[in-house]
Amino acid sequence: MSAVASVMTGSSKEYPAGRALDVSRHAMMLATGAALPEEIVTNENLIGELDLVASDRAVQFSLGIRERRRAARGVPVSKYLCDAARQCIERAGIHPEQIDRIVYCRLFGDHSVPATSLRVLQRLGVRRGIPAMDISAACSGVLHAIDVAISAINAGDDYVLVLGGDISVGRPEARREVDTRTAFLNGDGFAAVLLGPSDRPHFKCRYFYTDSDLYELASIPFGSVIANGSMDFSPDVLNLAMPDGRKIHKSVLESCAILSRRLLELAGMTMANIDFFITSDQTRLVWQDQVKMLGLSESQSVSCFHKYGNTVAAMVPLNLNEAIETGKLKRGMTVMMMGHGAGASGGGFIFTY
Amino acid sequence: MSAVASVMTGSSKEYPAGRALDVSRHAMMLATGAALPEEIVTNENLIGELDLVASDRAVQFSLGIRERRRAARGVPVSKYLCDAARQCIERAGIHPEQIDRIVYCRLFGDHSVPATSLRVLQRLGVRRGIPAMDISAACSGVLHAIDVAISAINAGDDYVLVLGGDISVGRPEARREVDTRTAFLNGDGFAAVLLGPSDRPHFKCRYFYTDSDLYELASIPFGSVIANGSMDFSPDVLNLAMPDGRKIHKSVLESCAILSRRLLELAGMTMANIDFFITSDQTRLVWQDQVKMLGLSESQSVSCFHKYGNTVAAMVPLNLNEAIETGKLKRGMTVMMMGHGAGASGGGFIFTY
Repeated sequence: MSAVASVMTGSSKEYPAGRALDVSRHAMMLATGAALPEEIVTNENLIGELDLVASDRAVQFSLGIRERRRAARGVPVSKYLCDAARQCIERAGIHPEQIDRIVYCRLFGDHSVPATSLRVLQRLGVRRGIPAMDISAACSGVLHAIDVAISAINAGDDYVLVLGGDISVGRPEARREVDTRTAFLNGDGFAAVLLGPSDRPHFKCRYFYTDSDLYELASIPFGSVIANGSMDFSPDVLNLAMPDGRKIHKSVLESCAILSRRLLELAGMTMANIDFFITSDQTRLVWQDQVKMLGLSESQSVSCFHKYGNTVAAMVPLNLNEAIETGKLKRGMTVMMMGHGAGASGGGFIFTY
Repeated sequence: MSAVASVMTGSSKEYPAGRALDVSRHAMMLATGAALPEEIVTNENLIGELDLVASDRAVQFSLGIRERRRAARGVPVSKYLCDAARQCIERAGIHPEQIDRIVYCRLFGDHSVPATSLRVLQRLGVRRGIPAMDISAACSGVLHAIDVAISAINAGDDYVLVLGGDISVGRPEARREVDTRTAFLNGDGFAAVLLGPSDRPHFKCRYFYTDSDLYELASIPFGSVIANGSMDFSPDVLNLAMPDGRKIHKSVLESCAILSRRLLELAGMTMANIDFFITSDQTRLVWQDQVKMLGLSESQSVSCFHKYGNTVAAMVPLNLNEAIETGKLKRGMTVMMMGHGAGASGGGFIFTY
């Protein structure tokens, strides 16, 4: 092993020592953070930019959205993620060097390779060479990332930072065809969630599923361009296509029914035990219908859709952040949290905040 | 909960019941599978297509590559992944319906959204709505996916299918500038690994790290195009750029040193306990130097680089598959397996096969 040792000498970098598996270690939700781009784009702004026949009033009535944010041109995703991460870490009262792992849920990220979570580490100035991974998932993605974080804490990690959000507002010049059904839906937003260790099992249960029959319901078909070998493609392949909004609405409600039923079964609970509900709100009505279906009141949940729109992977953590910031979600409450990937993929937890 | 129940009635789909956490459940490596596109592209072929001043002999001498495979135009990544998955499942002697989870490590996949693992489920004809997730990572990515699989099995899953590989050979028409340093390196390949439960701890330890200082060493800078808001980009942003091959060579060897030292420490072993070595072989020499550094003989490892090239996330599982297929890796052997993301990200395990 002398050869190995000699190669090591060249590096002044500190790498984590690794940890033995410690299965009595439970995970808990410590803090959240958010980063929203400064530019506010109103419905009127979009109508003008995209030259649409529509009115702010009609858009607000049908979708429940007033405005959304748009990332500044040339500002990389990792810059916003870092802002959200810093707020989150500060609120948790820990130092960036204490983070043991980063899991980022992305659409395209900064670079396709290496992982954008690595760039976040660089920007945060974390010296320890902690593990970092990007996952690719849409509206239910941060739930998957939290699941990975919980397993990592079960296995010995102390603090795991989960990040979500990407640039999803198509810029006017990046669209050839404008679909009025989707033009108002998306917004750019970024969120962070910090999980840490606990001696009590805060997370009561988790449940994830897919419905591959709904694969075509909502998609960003970019990858297929590469398989087809043509580089002369429409920028629309980078935008989220949702050919049938009513089907998505229905499938999200089915997803909510599947997840809530399974989660309650696994936790041995009924809805009477649930104090607060966090979910993905693809439209205002999608949120309202979920709350209604579960027999909850709207004061037991939050939706940022009216001001941020559909921020894809950031939706669920931005709602969680809003619930905590506004004091609606309090320590000790039992929370049902879920995310719906247009019904094709869903996941969630019941946990004590 | 009657409202929830009524929504459920509409669906004839079967979803997994979910499982209680079962931490006495260990994971083991059950089987592997591979799918290589039919088209073989020799060095001479590439020299002709790209109009390069080079010779087959010089390329074989400097890189150690003879040929690589190229995916057929228009055939989606999920088709190849399915072929690899079917071979793997058949070898393990299980039915596709027994799979509990899929984790796919991708570059671009079929669609950016939803997850390509979902499309694989659809193609495999799996009826149960099992969880599926894509992760975005390069040469060390399948190691991350195996890590997620092990945690899932620890937590109650029976069979987890890990997939890796994507289209990485730039087609001639998809390149504006040809970099002779990287033109011969990549190949298209796809691999599957099935993990299953065991009453004994086959996996002795795992270790993952990053070095964010090496973020720029090798990259596919595509995401940044979106942040810049311009859709008039060179197709080269989709190709892997490696400005300094010597630096990558050095950083991969450092990664091998870091991983081997930590893994041996965590397992309480020395290299004398290691029977077989699986690694990412970015070139023939990168493989040979790792084997040499660890004091092993070349018969204790395998490299497919000469025939498949750098298949990014498929490299490590294709080498594992080759070792098993050729009978070099036998049940009961102690294996050190690792993957290096150009030194920026690394991970590995010591396990009993």
